Amino acid sequence: MEEQKENTERTGDISKEKQDNVMFIGGKPLVNYVRGIIIQFKKKEASEVVVKSRGKFISKAVDAAEVAKRSLEDISVYIKEVNIASESFETNDKKTNISTMDIVLAR
Amino acid sequence: MEEQKENTERTGDISKEKQDNVMFIGGKPLVNYVRGIIIQFKKKEASEVVVKSRGKFISKAVDAAEVAKRSLEDISVYIKEVNIASESFETNDKKTNISTMDIVLAR
Repeated sequence: MEEQKENTERTGDISKEKQDNVMFIGGKPLVNYVRGIIIQFKKKEASEVVVKSRGKFISKAVDAAEVAKRSLEDISVYIKEVNIASESFETNDKKTNISTMDIVLAR
Repeated sequence: MEEQKENTERTGDISKEKQDNVMFIGGKPLVNYVRGIIIQFKKKEASEVVVKSRGKFISKAVDAAEVAKRSLEDISVYIKEVNIASESFETNDKKTNISTMDIVLAR
C-alpha cells in the first residue's frame, strides 16, 4: 500500500513512457522485480531501466539489479550508474532522513 | 564473529595503511560505523574512506555513508563513487550469489 503511494508521488510528473522504465522496489518478492526489469528490456525494448529504492529496500534493489543483469547477459545489460542520496521529511515536527538509491541498468 | 572473519579474509593482502580507510558494515549499531568514518576523516586525515557491505547490510551502508557525509559537510566530504557487484560461493555443492557494494567517500 505504502509502495503504491510512493509510486504515485514520485512519478506523477513524468510521462507514461518514462514511468515504464522505472522500477520501484518494495515489499514484493525479489523475483517480481527481476521479472519486471527483464520485461522492460526484452518485451518493451527499453534501452535503460532505473531501479529506485528507499530505506530497507535498498539491499533488495541491489539484488534485483544484479540478478537481472546476470539474466540479461545475452543482450549485454550492465550497471551504468549507481547514485545514493537522502530525502528528509517531517513527521510530528520531527525531521527524519531516509536514504535513497537509483541504479541505472543499460544495454 | 562472521564480520570479523570477513574483514580478515578481504583485507589480508593489503597494507595496514590501506586497511584504515576501509569500513566494513556489519551487525553493529549504525552510529558505530558513522563514528568510524568520521574518525578516519577527522583524526586520521584520510582523503578517502571505502564503505564496504554485502547482502542485507547494504541498506545500512548507504545510511552510514549518508549520515557521515552530512556530519562532514564542513570538510566537504562527498560520495565519489558507488559500485555494486556480486560474489558467488558454494555451500554444500549449491552455488549462491551475494550482492556487494562499495561506497567511496572522499573530501
